[in-house]
Amino acid sequence: MNEKKTVKKTTKSTKTTKTASKSTSKDSLKATPLTKKVASKQRVLTQKLKIIPLGGLGEIGKNLTVFECMGDIILVDCGLKFPDENMYGIDAVIPDFTYLLENRHKIRGLFITHGHEDHIGGISYLLKQINIPIYGTKLAMGLLNRKLSEHNLEKSTTLNIVKAGNTVNVRGFSVEFVQSNHSIPDSCCLYIKCKGGSVFHTGDFKMDYTPVDGQQINLQRIANIGAEGIDVLMADSTNAERPGQTKSEASVGKTFMNLFREADKRRIIVATFATNVHRVQQVFDAAKKYKRKIAISGRSMVNVIAVAKELKYLKFNDNILIDINDVDNYKPSQVVLLTTGSQGEPMAALSRMAKGEHRQFRVTNEDFVIISATPIPGNEKMVAEVISSLIKLGANVVYQGAEGIHVSGHAQIEELKLMHSLVKAKYFMPVHGEFKMLAAHRDIAVELGQKEENVFIMENGDVLEINKSGARITGSVQHGITMIDGLGIGDVGNIVLKDRKKLSEDGLFIVVISLTKNNVVSGPDIVSRGFVYMRESEELLSGAKNIARKVLSKYKNKLFDYNSIKTDMKYDLEKYLFEKTKRRPMILPILMYIKPEEEV
Amino acid sequence: MNEKKTVKKTTKSTKTTKTASKSTSKDSLKATPLTKKVASKQRVLTQKLKIIPLGGLGEIGKNLTVFECMGDIILVDCGLKFPDENMYGIDAVIPDFTYLLENRHKIRGLFITHGHEDHIGGISYLLKQINIPIYGTKLAMGLLNRKLSEHNLEKSTTLNIVKAGNTVNVRGFSVEFVQSNHSIPDSCCLYIKCKGGSVFHTGDFKMDYTPVDGQQINLQRIANIGAEGIDVLMADSTNAERPGQTKSEASVGKTFMNLFREADKRRIIVATFATNVHRVQQVFDAAKKYKRKIAISGRSMVNVIAVAKELKYLKFNDNILIDINDVDNYKPSQVVLLTTGSQGEPMAALSRMAKGEHRQFRVTNEDFVIISATPIPGNEKMVAEVISSLIKLGANVVYQGAEGIHVSGHAQIEELKLMHSLVKAKYFMPVHGEFKMLAAHRDIAVELGQKEENVFIMENGDVLEINKSGARITGSVQHGITMIDGLGIGDVGNIVLKDRKKLSEDGLFIVVISLTKNNVVSGPDIVSRGFVYMRESEELLSGAKNIARKVLSKYKNKLFDYNSIKTDMKYDLEKYLFEKTKRRPMILPILMYIKPEEEV
Repeated sequence: MNEKKTVKKTTKSTKTTKTASKSTSKDSLKATPLTKKVASKQRVLTQKLKIIPLGGLGEIGKNLTVFECMGDIILVDCGLKFPDENMYGIDAVIPDFTYLLENRHKIRGLFITHGHEDHIGGISYLLKQINIPIYGTKLAMGLLNRKLSEHNLEKSTTLNIVKAGNTVNVRGFSVEFVQSNHSIPDSCCLYIKCKGGSVFHTGDFKMDYTPVDGQQINLQRIANIGAEGIDVLMADSTNAERPGQTKSEASVGKTFMNLFREADKRRIIVATFATNVHRVQQVFDAAKKYKRKIAISGRSMVNVIAVAKELKYLKFNDNILIDINDVDNYKPSQVVLLTTGSQGEPMAALSRMAKGEHRQFRVTNEDFVIISATPIPGNEKMVAEVISSLIKLGANVVYQGAEGIHVSGHAQIEELKLMHSLVKAKYFMPVHGEFKMLAAHRDIAVELGQKEENVFIMENGDVLEINKSGARITGSVQHGITMIDGLGIGDVGNIVLKDRKKLSEDGLFIVVISLTKNNVVSGPDIVSRGFVYMRESEELLSGAKNIARKVLSKYKNKLFDYNSIKTDMKYDLEKYLFEKTKRRPMILPILMYIKPEEEV
Repeated sequence: MNEKKTVKKTTKSTKTTKTASKSTSKDSLKATPLTKKVASKQRVLTQKLKIIPLGGLGEIGKNLTVFECMGDIILVDCGLKFPDENMYGIDAVIPDFTYLLENRHKIRGLFITHGHEDHIGGISYLLKQINIPIYGTKLAMGLLNRKLSEHNLEKSTTLNIVKAGNTVNVRGFSVEFVQSNHSIPDSCCLYIKCKGGSVFHTGDFKMDYTPVDGQQINLQRIANIGAEGIDVLMADSTNAERPGQTKSEASVGKTFMNLFREADKRRIIVATFATNVHRVQQVFDAAKKYKRKIAISGRSMVNVIAVAKELKYLKFNDNILIDINDVDNYKPSQVVLLTTGSQGEPMAALSRMAKGEHRQFRVTNEDFVIISATPIPGNEKMVAEVISSLIKLGANVVYQGAEGIHVSGHAQIEELKLMHSLVKAKYFMPVHGEFKMLAAHRDIAVELGQKEENVFIMENGDVLEINKSGARITGSVQHGITMIDGLGIGDVGNIVLKDRKKLSEDGLFIVVISLTKNNVVSGPDIVSRGFVYMRESEELLSGAKNIARKVLSKYKNKLFDYNSIKTDMKYDLEKYLFEKTKRRPMILPILMYIKPEEEV
């Protein structure tokens, strides 16, 4: 009840012009040659393209970009991000949608590059506020549909399935889906055109010359698009610091074959990302070759395999699957367990196995575990613990560092160079990465001959305006993060988080007193949690009670001065407890006033 | 006051025999041939060496090993560990000293391999309980002495400086210090002999053929010791998963020279570990060559440089140093800033510079930053944020991945093979590492011909007994962790931590009620922190109050039933709040009883 005003969404307010390309100015925009159709001054002013990233810059996660031209808006991707460790108790983070809500009548569609959480995980929360048509390839739409049904949104939403190679026209924009490669099938680059300009957005990509499904990134079409003349290239920067080029996903399949042979009579456990459908396919292929059955563990693994099988992205004969409860009916040499938890997530199946807490499954020295993934930054320690625990249980574990066990889904430096060389755009905006990655990507572009002033390293909310005479950052719109905690969307703000942080560090120290206008009738009593072990701290407690009593006696004839008593008590107790313990628990004095009529 | 019994120290109780080498049994120990001196049965039984690691196994940190023989004990190292992220509010972790306190009269000395925190950081806490003589090389003793003086222990403590090559004899043991190499000068291996057997303990080591101070690891002596016949090799496992061998520390000096040239007119900032004195020396050397002054930032950098200079581990002319406040009086090209914070620690100097919060220093596009370190697992995200922020400020940043900017201080696989081949011990105990590293180190030893049954992968607390007829793990002594929080050593236990965790996730929800035996006289009132933004949750609050009232009315004639009311209130409110918010705050019902005489 005493909580102060909290900020619903952490936002930055509108900025003024930040940097400007020297070749243009606001006035020169008016001098743009007119077509017959655009006559009014208003029209002249708006014949430009604005690109506004609302998420995904300066971070990995919650990708969302606005493209705005002459009163029409399209969006590309709408993802979520997992909370930082200082976001106590938060489940997920999505972009601040304020700008979209303010401009909701202009939005013509949301275009999805691929079906990963950081590209589709925010959509349900957006759709609760605005209903807009969604366009994407079949697998992304299949995965999204499952999410929407969890939020009871599947009936009200229009999902449009687009094939790579096709173009979608909405008011103001045409968007061509161009086949690319990534760690999930059916990823696409987007070729976006409007009156204001043209954009090639790579989405998350790599160059795989031998993809598992044969759907190679369409380099011919990209070259072709480049030749048509592109204003802005927006390209994935995740691996812009990594020299060389990624290996083909198919190379992991070869590793699986070797490891399955090496596993010999042992039971095999493979942990990987559920959405890496090609990786999963290669596990099925290896199992088939070595005549093993497959049991699936982990909710997302079960879900994604169901969707991918139904949509024919996964090809296997159903009789290869066995129920996880039946694993013990087979010899170790006859089984593969395919599971989630490659990131050491505490609640995922692999972690539960490592801790001996998996309901159906015990790991023993007859197990051969393959962790086909690299820890995402921040997860290293958790993954290491899982590996150690599995080895302790006697399992043979093949993990990070082992040759060929994982390949990245993001283009490395040489692949990025190829992309730039095919597109040869006038302007370049590095996207999808922390600032250092964006900067490294800029350096690559500059090395390839891109002029530095034509590279725009932007922040979320920044507005890049492009027209025929130039491109420049003209300002910033409202942006930021919205935190999701349980059912609450954006109801946890900085003050709540600050309180959680303080409580987590030194706990809580409550002093309760019942009093009438003239008398203390009960207390001071002390309740504490997370501070010290109370039974062994009697001296500390009686000292604290004395301090509370002293404050009360100071206010003997002013017991109605509620706020002053609380302030004094807080201050004096804080000083006392810090002196004695060097800790700063949250101190909560609670005064209960008993009304005169109740005094009798 | 309502806190339940908490465990002061997280400990495991004594275990019974765990694994036994097949070649021996308890009975066979009695059959050991007697020397003339040992006649009584008691003596016969104790003519064996026990090795008991109390920290450092299954983890990186808080290294501490007990060597016990015929009623005498020596200790090797006594370090601390930084808390895990689930140890809310904890400052540091040290080993449980119970076994040492119980056997305090047997302890003859503490031998230090080198001056890193994970080897000396726990000593002050041990010395507060037992005063024992300490032996180590000059730099380790110098760094330790500074710590002791912070705890007012320097006068009561005997620090014995030992030179590499020398042997210390205490009752029951002789300990030879053998020069090795590591990321701090003057690191030593220890050759430990007693009646029960001989041990070669590598400490943390690498093989540096061209060390900066010319003090190469003494391979000849190690070979010699090996030839004398060693029972147990205890060797550093940190890099047992990394193929190849580490580069020489001197190679980093060459990189510095190149980078200083490349930096040209820009100001140079070098961040590294303060205790890596040779690294620091090479910064001084490069600064001298390029005629730059050095300013030092960060408390530990200032401290370590002072100690190392005084003890002549660092060689530089004092006039190369300038005060950090004077940096702006020099041109960028004339200055090097040497700083802490290479791990992204939020409070360290480099992080404060990155956030623009450093008191004396602003980073601009005239800065050339060299981060000469690799992130320790768990620090990756913080380091990445610091790098991004520095780049955003315009600085040129050379960091991880850049060629030759950092080398490890721990032997990789090929170096480990060399160590095993020189020592050729009968038994091998991998130490200093997570379980997966210990297991990898075992595999290396087995590959070199060590019998698997003679490799002992132990856990903290395990007791390895060695005598002439064999070696085996015979049990386990009390061990575990003691958490340090402010002034409290071991007063935070699992219950306090569990409370902090719960408070951190969903905050706190307090219901206060004043009541007499027969009447509710005030409340229910609600106070909450870290749960929801209260002003916007009026409906939720009035709902919660109603639930509290319902519970009270249920107990209308039994208001004295304190505990039942609290339990019901907790249960009903938890259910209600979870339904409404999907959150589970800590619920604290506080009932204040007002005595009858106060009722009037």
